[in-house]
Amino acid sequence: MRGLPSHGMQRLPLLLSRLEKGLADGRTQGVATWSRQAFLEVDGERGLGPVVMMNAMRHLKQNLPETGITVAAIRNANHIGMLAYHAEKAARDGLIAIVMSTSEALVHPFGGTEAMLGTNPVAIGIPAGDRPFVLDLATSVVSMGKIRNHALGGVPIPLGWAVDAEGHPTQDPVAAQGGAIAPFGDAKGYGLGLAIELLVAALAGSAVSPDVQGTLDDCYPAHKGDLVILIDPASGAGAIPALIPYLDRLRLSRPLDAARPVAVPGDGAHARRTAALREGIALPQPLFEQLMAFKAA
Amino acid sequence: MRGLPSHGMQRLPLLLSRLEKGLADGRTQGVATWSRQAFLEVDGERGLGPVVMMNAMRHLKQNLPETGITVAAIRNANHIGMLAYHAEKAARDGLIAIVMSTSEALVHPFGGTEAMLGTNPVAIGIPAGDRPFVLDLATSVVSMGKIRNHALGGVPIPLGWAVDAEGHPTQDPVAAQGGAIAPFGDAKGYGLGLAIELLVAALAGSAVSPDVQGTLDDCYPAHKGDLVILIDPASGAGAIPALIPYLDRLRLSRPLDAARPVAVPGDGAHARRTAALREGIALPQPLFEQLMAFKAA
Repeated sequence: MRGLPSHGMQRLPLLLSRLEKGLADGRTQGVATWSRQAFLEVDGERGLGPVVMMNAMRHLKQNLPETGITVAAIRNANHIGMLAYHAEKAARDGLIAIVMSTSEALVHPFGGTEAMLGTNPVAIGIPAGDRPFVLDLATSVVSMGKIRNHALGGVPIPLGWAVDAEGHPTQDPVAAQGGAIAPFGDAKGYGLGLAIELLVAALAGSAVSPDVQGTLDDCYPAHKGDLVILIDPASGAGAIPALIPYLDRLRLSRPLDAARPVAVPGDGAHARRTAALREGIALPQPLFEQLMAFKAA
Repeated sequence: MRGLPSHGMQRLPLLLSRLEKGLADGRTQGVATWSRQAFLEVDGERGLGPVVMMNAMRHLKQNLPETGITVAAIRNANHIGMLAYHAEKAARDGLIAIVMSTSEALVHPFGGTEAMLGTNPVAIGIPAGDRPFVLDLATSVVSMGKIRNHALGGVPIPLGWAVDAEGHPTQDPVAAQGGAIAPFGDAKGYGLGLAIELLVAALAGSAVSPDVQGTLDDCYPAHKGDLVILIDPASGAGAIPALIPYLDRLRLSRPLDAARPVAVPGDGAHARRTAALREGIALPQPLFEQLMAFKAA
């Protein structure tokens, strides 16, 4: 509904197959244990990512009035889906959320050519009245899903998106799928992606990306990790309502192209979701048929 | 010593002037109060940024064994200097640190042309044996200091770094100084910079960038804010030593240019600091004379 099919219905056939094979368990919410008063250890027990995450966030909210900040480190859960969903949910509850996740190695280091990092996304949700601030970004310059779409359509990719298996920059989307995607923002984006890699592995005890499997296949348990930090803004000296006029000043500030106003992260997804609630979403025919086959089975 | 003079000795004359004028107070460490068990409110009382930050971090460490994660929100302190110093110090003590800061408005939104955001840096320190991971990045594509250096040398800047006062992309460093710098990494870097802007203001009660003064002038109190999160990795299921071989695999992975091995954030600064400890640092003659004049006064 937010216009990110790679993290929505497209994932469903793989997840159904993982459930069938016992690589995902639809009955568990994971086991959450407070190792410290504000630190929650979560063993996902092969549960579905969003289910385990929502359970972890419910726990985090329990100790939050006392501590002001809480963190959950999650291992052994399946793909979490889009992070924005969880960040937005927290923001709508008046809380700040920082969510991170790791994945299989798909991204090369800045100045490197081998897939050594996950796409390692981070989402940040901040309350702001009716339209909370919701940032959700992968630390790769583009998703592997987008490169796959170029390959399917026979459309070359821009130079700078990826290298091939030999490490040469390429515009061939098929060659790119066997190579590695670039980090976004050169050295800075690489640094951020690597920081997420290390933070998650260090705290959750999950694998580093070259050793991760199980979010793109239906053969292996999922070894990636997730991290979520909740902060109660009522603990601090600031005031959320004071931020809203600033966000509006941003939206009204002079754009580079008069036809494209400045946006605040979350605006686009909000508009797409609003339209989808009214109009529904389009499913590709092959995906629809795949899902009907699961329904019949 | 880390090769970042804009955040080192170059700041000293301005800080000395601010001390003389009472805009900075060299005697206070700020007043730190636990508003929640893991949330520290800090009024910097116009203290020097690094002094207030070090005091805040000492406090954060006190409650950390109990809570596993702690956060300090700092307002009313002067420029914090480089964030990496504090992130590295925590990492050398075996702790994870995430440090953020805001500044005067210097950066335009993605798709915008007006200076609406600070350069809003973030640093992340993670223990890793002898050479901790230390990321420290501004969310602008380049620092205003670097544009100033181009202006002094009469060297044009690359297209994409900045717009002029009318909002037109420019290669003229003088025009850029009156305009706005681009965020790094397009929409993603803009989103990250804005998230830092909002996180700091929401929790510290500091001003948003268009209303910030006092880190580049000696006329106004400093209204920006700082945020630091400490996490004790011993609270989690992960193991820091397991990360070190991964960092070495990154450094040894195939580079794009055989002459430039892949680096891990912090490697370059570590090498420059090691050389500076041996060889000293060069000060520009005018800066040296400016400092001698303060000494004489």
